[in-house]
Amino acid sequence: MSETKLTPVQTPFAQELVRQVRSLDTYDMLDGQNEAEMLDPFIMTKQRKREIPLVGDPDEIVMARVRAFYNAVATSIETASGLRAVPMLKTSYEGFGRVLITVGKLVVLDKTLRDLHRFGFPSFEQLNTRADRMIENAIVTIKAFREAAEA
Amino acid sequence: MSETKLTPVQTPFAQELVRQVRSLDTYDMLDGQNEAEMLDPFIMTKQRKREIPLVGDPDEIVMARVRAFYNAVATSIETASGLRAVPMLKTSYEGFGRVLITVGKLVVLDKTLRDLHRFGFPSFEQLNTRADRMIENAIVTIKAFREAAEA
Repeated sequence: MSETKLTPVQTPFAQELVRQVRSLDTYDMLDGQNEAEMLDPFIMTKQRKREIPLVGDPDEIVMARVRAFYNAVATSIETASGLRAVPMLKTSYEGFGRVLITVGKLVVLDKTLRDLHRFGFPSFEQLNTRADRMIENAIVTIKAFREAAEA
Repeated sequence: MSETKLTPVQTPFAQELVRQVRSLDTYDMLDGQNEAEMLDPFIMTKQRKREIPLVGDPDEIVMARVRAFYNAVATSIETASGLRAVPMLKTSYEGFGRVLITVGKLVVLDKTLRDLHRFGFPSFEQLNTRADRMIENAIVTIKAFREAAEA
């Protein structure tokens, strides 16, 4: 298993996430940061969570992060399936939202989001594990409903 | 054909639209209006269009109207198919947006929206015709990918 040698920032998903973060960095705010530093804001430890109010509206920086994450999930689904995957992210109020990823006429991910203003993962390992699970579930869904995915 | 006797405000779709407009009328602004008056803002004649700037951001009143329309389309799909239809509306910038309606894991309507700040139909007949076409297409899609729709 070559994967055991990869650090959590070197996994295929984390590398895709780095690309997405870079592509959404319209103001070149990331200049000079290494990859671990670029992904660091995705880690929301208990300590960090405590420093953020329980209820709040996510600002544009947080939303760019959420978008980067689900863009990376969609791109990974694309790579694994060979089919175009399109994310659609919608926020409603007080940090609630919904994200869909569609492939053709098929919904391969459908998730209610909450606490968006505190978006993040307990650790890099968790970030990778949860993303991989979303990607794997999407691939299973595509295999089950291939015709709708190709429509 | 009993349908020929219905005025365009009496069609099943227009009646559903009236219900949606009422349910989104949180400030009771519609009190005292009859159904034709309630649906009148959905009619965007050439004359009315000319009075609205070419480019603009849709305000909350227009967006409530767009939401009411696609809610009515989703509800009509539900009635015709017996399956739950969920709309998801997202605006991006300068009147652009996207609307999806999903049934189970199936996308039954996927539309790019533009000129949202001038949302409307040339006539009541057009409003009905276009809505009916969306609903019929959705039903055809459900029949073609029944398993994904029931997933």
